[in-house]
Order: sequence, then C-alpha cells, then structure tokens
Amino acid sequence: MKRAIVTGCAGFVGSHVTQKLLQLGYHVTGIDNFRSGKSEFLRDFLNHENFLFKKLDLNSCKNLEDYFADAEIVYHLAANADVRGGVEDTYVDLQFNVLMTHRILECMRKQGVKRLCFASTAAALGEPKIFPTPEDISVPTQTSIYGASKMSCEHFISSYSNCFEIEAYAFRFVSLLGPRYPHGHVIDFVKRLHENPRKLKILGDGSAKKSYLHIDDCVKALVLVCEELRPALQKRIKFDVYNLGYDGYIRVRDSAKLIAREMHLDPEFEFEKQIRGWKGDNPFVHLSIEKIKNLGWEPKFNIQDSIKSTVNWLLAEPWMFKK
Amino acid sequence: MKRAIVTGCAGFVGSHVTQKLLQLGYHVTGIDNFRSGKSEFLRDFLNHENFLFKKLDLNSCKNLEDYFADAEIVYHLAANADVRGGVEDTYVDLQFNVLMTHRILECMRKQGVKRLCFASTAAALGEPKIFPTPEDISVPTQTSIYGASKMSCEHFISSYSNCFEIEAYAFRFVSLLGPRYPHGHVIDFVKRLHENPRKLKILGDGSAKKSYLHIDDCVKALVLVCEELRPALQKRIKFDVYNLGYDGYIRVRDSAKLIAREMHLDPEFEFEKQIRGWKGDNPFVHLSIEKIKNLGWEPKFNIQDSIKSTVNWLLAEPWMFKK
Repeated sequence: MKRAIVTGCAGFVGSHVTQKLLQLGYHVTGIDNFRSGKSEFLRDFLNHENFLFKKLDLNSCKNLEDYFADAEIVYHLAANADVRGGVEDTYVDLQFNVLMTHRILECMRKQGVKRLCFASTAAALGEPKIFPTPEDISVPTQTSIYGASKMSCEHFISSYSNCFEIEAYAFRFVSLLGPRYPHGHVIDFVKRLHENPRKLKILGDGSAKKSYLHIDDCVKALVLVCEELRPALQKRIKFDVYNLGYDGYIRVRDSAKLIAREMHLDPEFEFEKQIRGWKGDNPFVHLSIEKIKNLGWEPKFNIQDSIKSTVNWLLAEPWMFKK
Repeated sequence: MKRAIVTGCAGFVGSHVTQKLLQLGYHVTGIDNFRSGKSEFLRDFLNHENFLFKKLDLNSCKNLEDYFADAEIVYHLAANADVRGGVEDTYVDLQFNVLMTHRILECMRKQGVKRLCFASTAAALGEPKIFPTPEDISVPTQTSIYGASKMSCEHFISSYSNCFEIEAYAFRFVSLLGPRYPHGHVIDFVKRLHENPRKLKILGDGSAKKSYLHIDDCVKALVLVCEELRPALQKRIKFDVYNLGYDGYIRVRDSAKLIAREMHLDPEFEFEKQIRGWKGDNPFVHLSIEKIKNLGWEPKFNIQDSIKSTVNWLLAEPWMFKK
C-alpha cells in the first residue's frame, strides 16, 4: 500500500492532485481547513475507498506529524495563494507559506518521509529581466511578500533536502486555469460582467503580459516528475526546481476581450493608467519550460483554450459566485 | 538629532557598529537580550551620553515598534549566527532570523522608518559553482537551514522595500574575525589548545578553503554604503546586496597551524576523513568583492593578520573561555 499526504486537498491544485493520486492507486490522506479550499471540490472523490479526509489547521493542529507516518510522499499544496493581499495583511504569507511549510518539513523529518512535491510560483522570481525566464536566473529582488514567502519555502525545502536526505521537487507555476479555478482575473471579470454586462473595470492599463497553464497540464507535470520519472531522477538530485507554464503569454486586455466574447457580451472596458494592477503585480510573466519539456512533458491546452474552459466552467457552477 | 536602532548591539558586529554610529554623531538605541550577545561587549560605550540600551527580546517583547519612532535607520544585526546548530534545533533559524526580521520590518513599516542595513551571509549562497562568487549567482540550492533562513530574510526585506518604499542594503558576510569574536573555528581551536596543547582535533579533513574578513573592514563597508554613499545610491535603488569578504582564502589546516604558532605551540593535528566539518558546512568560500570595491572600499587586514589579531585578542580576554 502506497500512502500520500495532500495538504490543501480541497483547493484548486490539491483537489486535482488528490484525484490523480487515487487513480494511480495511492491511499491518500487529504488535509484542508477550508480557509480557501471548498468542500464542493471534494465531491468527486470524498467517498473514494482510498481517500481519508482530515479537516484540520496545519498551523495550529496538535500532533500533526501523526498523520505523516508511513507516507511515501507529501504533496504540499496548502498555501496562501492570494498575491494581492500581502500588502494589507503582511503576516498572512509568512504564516500560511513559510511557517506552514516549515511545519510540514518537520513532520516529514520526524516521521522519516523522504519525498516532497511543493507548489512554488513564478511570482517568486520578482520581475525578471530575461524572457522566457529560466529556472536558474539570478537571486531575485522580490516584488511581493507572497513571492518572498514562496521563495523562502523553496530555500527551507532545499536545506532540509540537504540536511535530512529528503528528495524534493519545487514547481514554479504561472497562474493556473481550468475546472475548480477559485480566484484571479477570470473569476473577477466574469463576476463583474454578471453585475454589469455593459462595462468592465480592469486593474492596470491592460497591457500587462501574463502566461497561464491549464490545471490538467500542471497535474500531468507533477506526476511525471514526482512519480513516473523520479526513480531515474533521484539518483542525481535531492532537490530540483521546474518552471511550469505555457510557452506564450496574453495581454490582460486581450484576455478580457476573450472572456467577454465567451460570455456573448460586448462591454466597454475601463482601464487604469499604470501597467501594474496592484503593488507587487508583475507586468510580464513568461517562463521558459524547456527544462520540463526535456523530460517529455508538453502542455495540451493553449492559453486561449484555458481561459475559455475556465469561463465555461464558472458559468456552469454559479455557486462559485455566491461564496 | 539623528537616531539609529541597532539590534544585537551586544553582539560581535552590533557592538562595533554601535560604537561607529556614536562616533558619527548618532543617537543610538541598542537592543539585545544577551542570548548570544555579551554585556562585556557594551563596556566601551554603555555610558556614552547618546547611547540608550534596551535589554529586550525582539521576538516576544510587546510594543516593540514604540522604540522605532523617529529612527533614521535600523541596523538589524540580531540573529542566530550559529550555522551548525540548525540541524539539532531546526526552529532556531526560523525564529531568530526569519520571524525576527519580519517583526523588525513590521516595526519599520508601522513607524515609517525608511532605511535598513541587514547582515546576511555567504552561507545563504549554498555551495556555489563560481569562484570568486559574485552577488548575482543563480538562485541557490541551500545547504544549511541557517543559510536558508538568511536568504529568506533577504527576500522579505526586498519585498518590503518594493511594497513599502524602504531603502535596504543586505551584506553577505564571510566569517568575521577581530576583537569581540565570539564563536567559530578560531575560538574553538584556541580553547582546545588551552585544554590540550599537544593535540588539536579538527572538524573535517582540513582541506576546506575559507575566507575571512576583519570586523573593522566590515564596519567600514556598512557605513560607507548605508551612511556615506547612500544619498547618491538611493536615487537608483531601493534594495541592494553586497558581498563582504577578503579576496582570498585559507585552508582550515593552514589556519590551524597559524593559530598554534601564534600561541607558541606545536600540536599534533587530528583530522576527520570527510571535507565538511558538519552538515551544511561549505567546503569553499570565496566571494567576489568587486561590487563594493567599485564604491571605493578596500579591506586593510589580510586573512593571516585577521586570524592573528583574533588569537591575540582572545588570549588577552580569558573570560571569553569561561562563558
């Protein structure tokens, strides 16, 4: 019996990863406190015979390490994933990213769990000067507290990897799209267009260039590296980082037009003057995905299809706007 | 009246920086909890009319931000500086480095303090592949929890710098030597030779190459960047990083011989088999110091002189071995 822990199992990425691991024959213990996760995202597998759900808080729960006994791998996907909020609540990224990840690492160390998959972010690269941006760019100057916290997690993970022989893979995601997409510009735009179909207010001047990846392509990559190829990879490495994105980008204004068209609307767009939508917003995201492509991975969904499928999923799940 | 805050003012670096700032005409509020700082290090300036000492704990003290009102600059030098201990106590670097630095940043934000000097470390670069190692190497794979924690501090600082307009300078030190040197291989070797002048046990095989900088040269660099040149520098940058080291290195075994000779001893050396002295020990430290040299800084003390002056200071301060 193979056992996996998925933190944030009721979240966007966590719920898809859990489903995939159950398909692969894992017994999965999923942990979530519904801070940003949603019970609806558990529906499709809550009653799976190999799934055990634990509603608990990773920061405060006592004896957390008990749940980690005999696990083969931890998919640590619980996080604060809201980049914008860090300026208002300057503790949230420290608490839900750095402290929580340190606690997960401690649980792994104490229970001898030797494999970790970690969700990092393109935002941890600040505002890079090289595009498409490779994994091995210079130590970045951080532009958001969120990015700082995620890169700090990477550092603690690599140090634990070296000090305690943990095999760890970090993935720097661009923004993800697809079913169970919970927050970001697509849901914001769809929501605003529901409220007023004739006018759409956009943060920033619409010229920012962003890259997006479909959740299915993302999960495929995590499983490829952490499950399928790892017996070959781990002989060489204890810690490794992969960019995960689509080899291209779209301007915010074009994304807005696409979303409106998919909703059969023709609103007037209202832009701001500055390029950045908020403090710490990165006006150009385009990651190099050569490293993971060299392992045989290739995204199936282009950015336009990812956006359209997200809009259509949201339109079919009206409860998403009531929360 | 110019006011500065020095955290860790009873520590090795903090006590020298405090003295220098008092010389420069600053009113200095020095904070220390004597966790690793020593009251003896305050002797030379405790009664200076512009010095105010506060014995308090930066992690737990209430209303910490009250002390930060009206400060021009914070020299944040309080830290856990023991690289080796992180494997035994895996929380100490998180607590005394990351959480404490975040708290200092919060105090600065709340009180509108706009300038920060931060003590980072060469250890935050893991085991680099380029020598001498420049500031802008690739995002490092961390080898020690200490290094991970200090690089995390750099990230939080640069994100605060961007989000809250704080001018911040981080300095990545090699190991420092000179008066008030409190821990590291020189004091270890002198102590062991006091106990047994005929045999010296050395961690590692003695072939590791390390770089050292004299504390006087270090303080000179901090003041040059953060006080003297900054009116010119700050027009261009909000956050910047400088390596601080000596352009050269010495093997551990040669350092041991030099220390013994300075003590007029001729011990037998006992080495271990592996090159690293402990988990996370970096077998080769040699930083490029071109960036700060281009600002006009130059170290006065070479590595041999730094080691000798440290041995002689320790021999003249026997109380250092009783603590």
